[in-house]
Amino acid sequence: MADRVRPRTLKGFRDLLPSAAVAREHLVDVARSVFRRYGFGPIETPALEYTDILLGKGSDEADRQLYRFEDAGGRDVALRFDLTVPLARYVAEHEHELGMPFKRYHVGTVWRGENTQRGRYREFLQADFDTIGTESVVADVETAAVIDELFSSLGFERFTIKVNNRKVLNGLLERLDVARPSTTVLRALDKLPKIGAQAVSAELVDVAGLTAGQAAEILTFAEMAGSTGDVLAGLERLVASSATGRSGVDELVRFFDGAAAGGVASVELDVAIARGLDYYTGTVFETYLDDLPDIGSCCSGGRYDDLAGVYTKSRLPGVGASLGVDRLLAAIAELGLLDSAAAVSPVLVAMFDADRGSDHIAVAAELRRAGLSVELYPDARKLSAQLRYADQRGHRVAVIIGPDEWETATGQVKDLVTGASTRVARAALAGECLRILSGGPAPT
Amino acid sequence: MADRVRPRTLKGFRDLLPSAAVAREHLVDVARSVFRRYGFGPIETPALEYTDILLGKGSDEADRQLYRFEDAGGRDVALRFDLTVPLARYVAEHEHELGMPFKRYHVGTVWRGENTQRGRYREFLQADFDTIGTESVVADVETAAVIDELFSSLGFERFTIKVNNRKVLNGLLERLDVARPSTTVLRALDKLPKIGAQAVSAELVDVAGLTAGQAAEILTFAEMAGSTGDVLAGLERLVASSATGRSGVDELVRFFDGAAAGGVASVELDVAIARGLDYYTGTVFETYLDDLPDIGSCCSGGRYDDLAGVYTKSRLPGVGASLGVDRLLAAIAELGLLDSAAAVSPVLVAMFDADRGSDHIAVAAELRRAGLSVELYPDARKLSAQLRYADQRGHRVAVIIGPDEWETATGQVKDLVTGASTRVARAALAGECLRILSGGPAPT
Repeated sequence: MADRVRPRTLKGFRDLLPSAAVAREHLVDVARSVFRRYGFGPIETPALEYTDILLGKGSDEADRQLYRFEDAGGRDVALRFDLTVPLARYVAEHEHELGMPFKRYHVGTVWRGENTQRGRYREFLQADFDTIGTESVVADVETAAVIDELFSSLGFERFTIKVNNRKVLNGLLERLDVARPSTTVLRALDKLPKIGAQAVSAELVDVAGLTAGQAAEILTFAEMAGSTGDVLAGLERLVASSATGRSGVDELVRFFDGAAAGGVASVELDVAIARGLDYYTGTVFETYLDDLPDIGSCCSGGRYDDLAGVYTKSRLPGVGASLGVDRLLAAIAELGLLDSAAAVSPVLVAMFDADRGSDHIAVAAELRRAGLSVELYPDARKLSAQLRYADQRGHRVAVIIGPDEWETATGQVKDLVTGASTRVARAALAGECLRILSGGPAPT
Repeated sequence: MADRVRPRTLKGFRDLLPSAAVAREHLVDVARSVFRRYGFGPIETPALEYTDILLGKGSDEADRQLYRFEDAGGRDVALRFDLTVPLARYVAEHEHELGMPFKRYHVGTVWRGENTQRGRYREFLQADFDTIGTESVVADVETAAVIDELFSSLGFERFTIKVNNRKVLNGLLERLDVARPSTTVLRALDKLPKIGAQAVSAELVDVAGLTAGQAAEILTFAEMAGSTGDVLAGLERLVASSATGRSGVDELVRFFDGAAAGGVASVELDVAIARGLDYYTGTVFETYLDDLPDIGSCCSGGRYDDLAGVYTKSRLPGVGASLGVDRLLAAIAELGLLDSAAAVSPVLVAMFDADRGSDHIAVAAELRRAGLSVELYPDARKLSAQLRYADQRGHRVAVIIGPDEWETATGQVKDLVTGASTRVARAALAGECLRILSGGPAPT
């Protein structure tokens, strides 16, 4: 064919082969089941929205990264770049159907025309969950409980949910008479683990315009360490003269009290985390894997005063977090927590004789009725080729029925890990497959 | 705020409220688990592709419906309008990593700028599964087995998979010396159930240019009825002089033999179904709900000679089908097969006293540890407001702990269907919730 098209994908976009797609489906399944266990229900929103909706509160950066175009009807439209803006629009639009509090999760693809040189993709999956319409710290604790259960359920043994409250820093800035917004201060503080106290102090003075004394107090604050109780007591002293600061400390006290009551053992107070420059107004979360600290936070979020002020006059406070799906998948692979090389169906029924296609179909159907997941090889290729296929695909067991076996109403069941092969009566095929899959003892 | 943006979605696009999203997630979960039971693994492809990839073999209609634009890098790109073209590109691109046969499923969103006046959406979900790299009729039977198990698993009791083979009609046209392609003939035949034999005959003569004799023979063929065996015998006589026709009948014989062996009871030969004008080359499927015949086929597909000829010189035959997710969801709702009004978490723990937030968190955690899915109401609103919320959300059980209950380490468990309330010891709360959820007898 002269006009063949070269198969290729766009820069920053990618296919998932089955092994990667199996791992992603597993992660999403676990996330959804944990969200539901805490009363969060799913929603869906369109991938494409009016551009003015998506840019409602948008930064210049979001604007630059937008996949934006004019549709056939002349509308200015764009692909969503996160799930938070669509949530705000959704809640404003359906406020009266939803009722409050509204607890939703949303697993969806988002698109950003990011610089791919940093190894970033332009299309990726997000999984967000939020509780909207309440200011109760109970909802903050439940958010942490979801993260805790989710990470445990994914098989991570060592992880830390770092918790802070934006009001504490705001209270400190208030006391120090530093003019808000505190964006430049937060931006400098975020660099503390990377560039150290001295460089941050310099930035606070040079960029944020603080005095050396103010910078020193903020660093004392950011470097506070010790038990949660000790740090809370220290914070209380530091912000005692600010109502905002006291309220932040009080929220932290109630948060850690609630987390202890709920058995959420992975939370830890860390006054250095800032999370989000202008968006969050109370509790903030970042979640780190203790065994892979360098990959950064895998689940972040926090409390906000008002979700949807751009779209509605109703004030909608809430709290939520967002899972870094692809980052977690990389971690799961690196820590070997999922055998994604395993076949989706562990049993392969080999095809020995094309004229016996229907007989093979009947065998596969019998095994499936016994509860097994079974792939039936469709062609009567050489057995060695079929077993090579099983090996590549990660099948655990092969069922092989040749002329002798049809004669005698038996079948060979081959354990593809040990190589051992057993001949059993046809009625016993399913049992023998189940025995191998469950790691039971060999029949004597 | 002066610059508020009115919350709205694009024409042809829609949000899913939680009850609709729960139903869709359930359908997709069932579909994926059946696909896997038959050895199909998941894949993902980008939503956005180069336009020349998507139009590789595209019709003018596909072109017109495309969401197409120039990205920030000057590339001509478009949103995918189905999952078949991306599959062809994917298989051509990854042929050597995949190996054959390759069995994949793909659940994904597609976009078409269709006329919304016919009640069509411009964004919808598809669920496709295909077996590529084999010409074996065994794979055709397995395709029907997947559809059969999928519809049963979704709770449909009465449905029919109508099966035909394109080679039979092609053989008949060959014998009648009707020039191919047979598109106009197929298009006329597809209208048989709607406009009747006489009108179809007229169209065959006027539009397709057949003689009255040819039209009569084709109608005799299309109206053949009776047992599968009888019809097959009739077809065999009708196309005896055409090699293509005989091969089609032979494939049908082997298909129905295999389906019987595999216990696929819902298949039925229907020589009138044509399915796809040029794409399919052998077996074709359409699936109808016997109780809702008017909604049309809910799962259609068939066998093709060559999936990816536009992208690769390898010939890749295969067979597959595509679920009409939204059509099935409408059917599930209409037949009342899913209680989508039920809460994702059946138990609501009410909040009686904001100062006891941590105690309530502890109760919710205890119930969850007992295996229950539990929503904790975050605010100490009036109990009547919380019970109204539970009613709207579809909770089944409310756990209420007031001052008396904290005193005595007890709790009220309220059955929200019967209205009955039982006071039990705190340690017995989970057991009482489980009893109500499982419909067990009341304690005496």
